[in-house]
Amino acid sequence: MQEFIDLAHELADEAGQIIRQYYRQTFEVEIKNDESPVTIADKGVEKRLREIVMAKRPEDGVIGEEFGIKESKNQYDWVFDPIDGTKSFVIGRPTFGTLIALCENGIPILGVIDQPILKERWIGVKGQPTLLNGTPVKTRACPELSQARLASTSPSQLTNYWQKLCDSSNFMVWGGDCTSYGLLSIGGLDAVIETQLSTYDYIALPPIVEGAGGWMGDWDGKPLDINSDGRVLAVGDKALKTPLLDILKS
Amino acid sequence: MQEFIDLAHELADEAGQIIRQYYRQTFEVEIKNDESPVTIADKGVEKRLREIVMAKRPEDGVIGEEFGIKESKNQYDWVFDPIDGTKSFVIGRPTFGTLIALCENGIPILGVIDQPILKERWIGVKGQPTLLNGTPVKTRACPELSQARLASTSPSQLTNYWQKLCDSSNFMVWGGDCTSYGLLSIGGLDAVIETQLSTYDYIALPPIVEGAGGWMGDWDGKPLDINSDGRVLAVGDKALKTPLLDILKS
Repeated sequence: MQEFIDLAHELADEAGQIIRQYYRQTFEVEIKNDESPVTIADKGVEKRLREIVMAKRPEDGVIGEEFGIKESKNQYDWVFDPIDGTKSFVIGRPTFGTLIALCENGIPILGVIDQPILKERWIGVKGQPTLLNGTPVKTRACPELSQARLASTSPSQLTNYWQKLCDSSNFMVWGGDCTSYGLLSIGGLDAVIETQLSTYDYIALPPIVEGAGGWMGDWDGKPLDINSDGRVLAVGDKALKTPLLDILKS
Repeated sequence: MQEFIDLAHELADEAGQIIRQYYRQTFEVEIKNDESPVTIADKGVEKRLREIVMAKRPEDGVIGEEFGIKESKNQYDWVFDPIDGTKSFVIGRPTFGTLIALCENGIPILGVIDQPILKERWIGVKGQPTLLNGTPVKTRACPELSQARLASTSPSQLTNYWQKLCDSSNFMVWGGDCTSYGLLSIGGLDAVIETQLSTYDYIALPPIVEGAGGWMGDWDGKPLDINSDGRVLAVGDKALKTPLLDILKS
């Protein structure tokens, strides 16, 4: 596992170096070929991460947002979202992040959220405590939904559910992208609810959430794998799982 | 005016020093007297800022979120929001900020947004270019609403308007607190729409937005003063004013 952890750090380091070059350049730079700086950064990161994995672990599969699927010749797949939260990247708000996951037979066993501007990196490894910049972190005890701090990226995404969620607690925050799951893992948030996600948007997150003491799954309460349907719930205190799933089933 | 600018920087420096002590301590610290760390930080900052103003400019008025109004004996009032975006502060997301305004006869002539974790400080002074950490900044040209990047803190606040705003552009971000106005002033966002704000939530912002080339006013298109009703619109490109006000009147 240490080989995988070292490689995940190397991938996140490389991603951050590229992303920092384009952050807030969006507003000034004219780009040829109709490619926006965010697209260039996105593709540049994914290309670089694929090169590294292909050089070091040529048998492993790769799934990325920009360049699709390279089939695995063993049980391992790396999954990349170079910039999760592209709107935040574009406006210059450092809540976006690079997501890196390693799956074994389709199940995530390692996940990274890297925020390259704040230089905050969460890493979760199955069976190990989640680390934020090397320090173990824990979710917060919060068994009562009415006391819980909830987050989601946008009400449009949540359709009818957003108002029900707001009614269930008096603390709902919006925006936040992947770093909301990092804040859940350090006890800042108690639940994150999202839908319409692709594999690369969610698959890095369960090892981070669960290694900090929380639970993450789909809206039917099942664990997430590479083929889940993109409706996700993460809770810091497992007692919040049932009341939130009840709302999301209704 | 330089005396006021120097004092505004001193106030922001002091606020940041206090806030950084409590940031992300929220999750661990048990506090006596039922006061949360955010409340303690909020009150601590406002108390300190009042002391400084009262020592240096005893005739000036002070309006703050926590300790009310000290009447002015001249034409000047300082207005403080120690932590704008308390939910973001509580969850550990650095989009909150300290707002400091100076009003002359109720009209804002100087405004500061200070984000003490990212160490980003916007200052706007009537008739001068807005500065971000000392560098002049400008809003972005974006005359077409359909191309505009919009932001608001929460859909609950916007009631019926949020869906209309989402329909008017395909780029809406949520969350962000006062730093959204800073991102507008550097061309990351094109419009920020909010309502239900108190004087201390909005009065620092017009000098920042307008010194960067934008416009800010209420939903009737009038300039903001100390007695405005808390419905605000900020645009980076003045051509967005009319189409957005049309939506907000409907």
